[in-house]
Amino acid sequence: MISNGTNIKEMSSVFLGEDFLLDNEYSILLYHQYAKDLPIIDYHNHLPPQAIAVNKQYQNITQIWLYGDHYKWRAMRANGINERYITGDASDWKKFEQYALTLPYTLRNPLYHWSHLELKRYFGIDELLTPKTAQSIYDQCNLLLNTEEYAVQHLLKKMKVELLCTTDDPTDDLSFHQMIAQQSFGIRVLPTFRPDKAILIEQAGFTEYIEHLSEVADTEIEHFQGLIDALHKRMDFFHEHGCRLADHGLEKLETTDFSLPEVDRILTKKRKGQAISKSEAAQYQSAVLHHLGVAYHTKNWTMQLHLGALRNNNSRLLGSLGPDTGFDSIGDFSQAQSLSKFLNRLDASNQLAKTILYNLNPRDNEVFAAMAGNFQDGTIVGKIQYGSGWWFLDQLDGMEKQINALSNMGLLSRFIGMLTDSRSFLSYPRHEYFRRLLCNIFGKDLQGGRLPKDLDWIGKVIQDICYYNAKNYFSF
Amino acid sequence: MISNGTNIKEMSSVFLGEDFLLDNEYSILLYHQYAKDLPIIDYHNHLPPQAIAVNKQYQNITQIWLYGDHYKWRAMRANGINERYITGDASDWKKFEQYALTLPYTLRNPLYHWSHLELKRYFGIDELLTPKTAQSIYDQCNLLLNTEEYAVQHLLKKMKVELLCTTDDPTDDLSFHQMIAQQSFGIRVLPTFRPDKAILIEQAGFTEYIEHLSEVADTEIEHFQGLIDALHKRMDFFHEHGCRLADHGLEKLETTDFSLPEVDRILTKKRKGQAISKSEAAQYQSAVLHHLGVAYHTKNWTMQLHLGALRNNNSRLLGSLGPDTGFDSIGDFSQAQSLSKFLNRLDASNQLAKTILYNLNPRDNEVFAAMAGNFQDGTIVGKIQYGSGWWFLDQLDGMEKQINALSNMGLLSRFIGMLTDSRSFLSYPRHEYFRRLLCNIFGKDLQGGRLPKDLDWIGKVIQDICYYNAKNYFSF
Amino acid sequence: MISNGTNIKEMSSVFLGEDFLLDNEYSILLYHQYAKDLPIIDYHNHLPPQAIAVNKQYQNITQIWLYGDHYKWRAMRANGINERYITGDASDWKKFEQYALTLPYTLRNPLYHWSHLELKRYFGIDELLTPKTAQSIYDQCNLLLNTEEYAVQHLLKKMKVELLCTTDDPTDDLSFHQMIAQQSFGIRVLPTFRPDKAILIEQAGFTEYIEHLSEVADTEIEHFQGLIDALHKRMDFFHEHGCRLADHGLEKLETTDFSLPEVDRILTKKRKGQAISKSEAAQYQSAVLHHLGVAYHTKNWTMQLHLGALRNNNSRLLGSLGPDTGFDSIGDFSQAQSLSKFLNRLDASNQLAKTILYNLNPRDNEVFAAMAGNFQDGTIVGKIQYGSGWWFLDQLDGMEKQINALSNMGLLSRFIGMLTDSRSFLSYPRHEYFRRLLCNIFGKDLQGGRLPKDLDWIGKVIQDICYYNAKNYFSF
Repeated sequence: MISNGTNIKEMSSVFLGEDFLLDNEYSILLYHQYAKDLPIIDYHNHLPPQAIAVNKQYQNITQIWLYGDHYKWRAMRANGINERYITGDASDWKKFEQYALTLPYTLRNPLYHWSHLELKRYFGIDELLTPKTAQSIYDQCNLLLNTEEYAVQHLLKKMKVELLCTTDDPTDDLSFHQMIAQQSFGIRVLPTFRPDKAILIEQAGFTEYIEHLSEVADTEIEHFQGLIDALHKRMDFFHEHGCRLADHGLEKLETTDFSLPEVDRILTKKRKGQAISKSEAAQYQSAVLHHLGVAYHTKNWTMQLHLGALRNNNSRLLGSLGPDTGFDSIGDFSQAQSLSKFLNRLDASNQLAKTILYNLNPRDNEVFAAMAGNFQDGTIVGKIQYGSGWWFLDQLDGMEKQINALSNMGLLSRFIGMLTDSRSFLSYPRHEYFRRLLCNIFGKDLQGGRLPKDLDWIGKVIQDICYYNAKNYFSF
Repeated sequence: MISNGTNIKEMSSVFLGEDFLLDNEYSILLYHQYAKDLPIIDYHNHLPPQAIAVNKQYQNITQIWLYGDHYKWRAMRANGINERYITGDASDWKKFEQYALTLPYTLRNPLYHWSHLELKRYFGIDELLTPKTAQSIYDQCNLLLNTEEYAVQHLLKKMKVELLCTTDDPTDDLSFHQMIAQQSFGIRVLPTFRPDKAILIEQAGFTEYIEHLSEVADTEIEHFQGLIDALHKRMDFFHEHGCRLADHGLEKLETTDFSLPEVDRILTKKRKGQAISKSEAAQYQSAVLHHLGVAYHTKNWTMQLHLGALRNNNSRLLGSLGPDTGFDSIGDFSQAQSLSKFLNRLDASNQLAKTILYNLNPRDNEVFAAMAGNFQDGTIVGKIQYGSGWWFLDQLDGMEKQINALSNMGLLSRFIGMLTDSRSFLSYPRHEYFRRLLCNIFGKDLQGGRLPKDLDWIGKVIQDICYYNAKNYFSF
Repeated sequence: MISNGTNIKEMSSVFLGEDFLLDNEYSILLYHQYAKDLPIIDYHNHLPPQAIAVNKQYQNITQIWLYGDHYKWRAMRANGINERYITGDASDWKKFEQYALTLPYTLRNPLYHWSHLELKRYFGIDELLTPKTAQSIYDQCNLLLNTEEYAVQHLLKKMKVELLCTTDDPTDDLSFHQMIAQQSFGIRVLPTFRPDKAILIEQAGFTEYIEHLSEVADTEIEHFQGLIDALHKRMDFFHEHGCRLADHGLEKLETTDFSLPEVDRILTKKRKGQAISKSEAAQYQSAVLHHLGVAYHTKNWTMQLHLGALRNNNSRLLGSLGPDTGFDSIGDFSQAQSLSKFLNRLDASNQLAKTILYNLNPRDNEVFAAMAGNFQDGTIVGKIQYGSGWWFLDQLDGMEKQINALSNMGLLSRFIGMLTDSRSFLSYPRHEYFRRLLCNIFGKDLQGGRLPKDLDWIGKVIQDICYYNAKNYFSF
């Protein structure tokens, strides 16, 4: 117990200060000496390539910060803010004002850390955002946003981003990626192949999507093989443009046995507008995913699987606002057996690509982390990765739990580390945040004698996790 | 590491002392300045209204403390105590003696904290309860219990209870609530509408219950609509007596599509004594719950859902002792999809009432906390609440986990806080316990620099969670 | 925050030092005064009885430490080590060298603690194992292994093992156990009855196994009753040789209703080489397990259930390496209802034996811990045990979580404590590890005022958990 008030300052670290999240001298030393200054490889995000290509300049902080950020929207709704000020027709200032009113109520929610860290790192703002400070912060940010250094390419450079991977549909013409490549502005911007729309056969618009894919790939899709051919063509095209990763967002894998004649029949049935059953859908998905998986392996790509979301829960507000507007949450699916079966089917013929498994329900962290270990075969260092906490788990507690589960079940030292997974150009301090909490985990272990005091080695491991492992793992 | 023994005292806080559970000066300051003195709104418990109405005086500590407390019974059974001394015909003193023998073995179980805290707060007992101290503590408590100030109305006042809600069957005549209302003894005691028996169609006694409901409501229940009419009448009656909450205790929601003719048929079948299938039961339950949900919304009531228990596991001892005697535990049901479907069906027509979701399996904390966020629509501050840890989770670890999950996924600041959920008049120190651990969570964040040192704001948020949020949320 | 570097040493405990894992003076005192010197009852492991019987001397550290240790193999594979150096034909030195190369990368994985603790406790090695120290450590260990004091009986004595239980198939002739018993070398070595092969009717080799069992038991197995008779005979035989425990390794219990004529039919069908359905398999398993359970109760044995593994995920490497080579992981099965039904069916007729439930998925800790409480009936102290973290959970975090779940839901004080569950003669420091972390849990509660400063009582409870509870619980 601290005996008097004057000691508190000495004992307490400062919110967002130099040693934020670093609870002892080991943590501080590790972060500042080893982690802080490394560049960033952001191998998975949802940044809009167009904005990078045209080096977009946002007019105000509302547009770059609140538009499209469904995390903030959820918080505002929980805080009783009218939808007008969230996604409605209120002015940008009014929207910002309502967020400023909400932010103080988010304390202990990740938004509280992220929002203040972003204001500080990008705009040099040290004050807390509250109704009182809203106007001056709004003005200050907007002034800066309208200067050249706040065009998005500069924002990325400011954060020492070295390479980033966007997330793209197979039918995308990658014209913006081509534009970016021609500019050589100092950051590599690569596409990621995300064929969800070709997989989710039960989703509205599937048939139209297949038509579109057929056209873009200039390939007849009469049969399942045609679909696979079309996807292969698009993979080749993506590969030419530097793509080395695929990504998939699925509630859970539905892994069943399948036969190609059956899958042919299911695809044809669907394209004729007939209803297909749950088990037919599962068979189709199993087949597509398996064929894609084989292709990724052939191309030496990395396959990402984002599992566990329960999407589109609120049909009333989805009806008015559309998807990705804050009505998704965490599912409680059984994941282990279908995931095992999927990975094993690829591995059985030695065609399992490098794979990253991302889990959205923290209760399943250990299942995922242990599952990765089943398919490590000694051919590639850390071949199967248990990926960082994502979406709802992309926060202090979620990331620590992912790191601890990985530590207990596998090799943390071989972890390829953090990614933003974000749609926002202002989210790069999440890498800093990750590095701090990572160093603090090691620092606490050092302080508590759980690790030997070999700072050189631990510092090297931290540098690997923050940067070098990703650099070595991918084939960019 | 502490260098010598004399330092230990200074570093260690005292068990049940003034600063119990408060690990640093921030925690201490927050608790004593902001939380400690607030009155209590205990919006959900199982206190017997009759005892309050007649201002019951218990004869001895066994009767007020051990009778009916299946937490203590489970501990005694695990400790090898014969059932005679638990629910059997042993004398009250002998039962107390056996509990005193067991309590030292409960260390690290919530009973250890609760029991000693209750002895201290109600009876001023500072000693630990052990076989050695059993007799003197028994005598001391009994002496006090036989004084006027230990009649139950005084016990509630002693704890600064301002309002409390009991849990009542729709067929209850609320006569004791009427008696209480006429006394105006300074605490509002309101009923809660708990229609489980009208929902659980597979439970023994369902048909008889429906007959009884029909009589009490003076409504023919030929068809499903008759049942709904009867329940509506009872809701009106409850509303007149101050009821503003409903409650439901279900293993999990079974949410299926339903049609009224089908539900009619199922109800009729059941009432004729014919067996109904699992899916018929689910259809019936979905229909009743949906209609109830709409009614709660119309009345501006709050709907509580207690989910996740696995009940009546031990048929041998249930046979001799009956339900609620300590043979229930935690289920591992899938909850997310059915809960989403249930809430969404109500929300789709904008008829979702204020709702509190209580979860019994801690692995599902994040699922529940994130689910609440899907139905926040900005119309009411904190409209969908993720409720405090209940039953097996109503302890330090369980409550901290609930608070952390809520913090990460939603707005802790808008949380309506603690409730006893108890059958015992001696359980009110749980509010103190909650306040202490809540202040300690904030205190640790302050000390660790996870929050800015804005004690005014954090103090206000704590006061909101401990008292004002509940006051504003309900429409008492 | 520590103000300068010189303080760090004083504040930090030393990795593997005298006070390893002991974070404050209470922890230190509890461990050194109460826990450290107690003998070991290792009531469940997989040590080979033959090696004990012949007092085997291992030729080198690779053979005693790396052969057969699939934990280490998984780590090496994740680290990109070629299978040649893991299970292949590389020399023992080369294999050790590759493990020495991997171990530094396992920091924060339990292997890091275990490996270094084992090198230290058995071989007196204080250095970290790295590529640099590999040769000298290899030589040093091998020198010692070739001395008389490193024959396995001496290794066990060195760790103060008083009694240990191996795990044995019902068809085993227990000849090595007989040899051991005749030597009276100071440690009791008892068999455990593990009839998995008679239960897992869907597993390859089942029919042949039943033939073999029939022969060994000298009992016709025409019908189900014959199988039960044969198993009874083997239980009698095991009992004569000191067996007092049974064990079962199952993904989950499949508890269904069954009738003996049906089970007869299923067994016959299977033995004729016909395929049986999932539900037939479940019925058969339910019947065998129930009959076994009754027999354990009659014999006053303890029934162990190891639940939750997902086995044999990698068919390619299983094909070349066989089972138990590192391709098992954690399942996410529903456990509560089937476990409840199984235990209840035995308890209904008061034939439920003392039972230990072991859980492999940490998300289910609370379900298991609470389930145990349903069947405590006051007849035996701690009759239903929630067992220590096993396999993937047999590490700091997993054991702490098990202890905390047990504390919250039951009586930690009545816990029968640690077991190695290991195939290795070098794994006994896990008991030390358990005792340290247990003392630290109590020490932190003491320091934080969560427990009264009654060190005598807490010391006694710790001694009970570390030794006396197991001694009293079993009927060895």
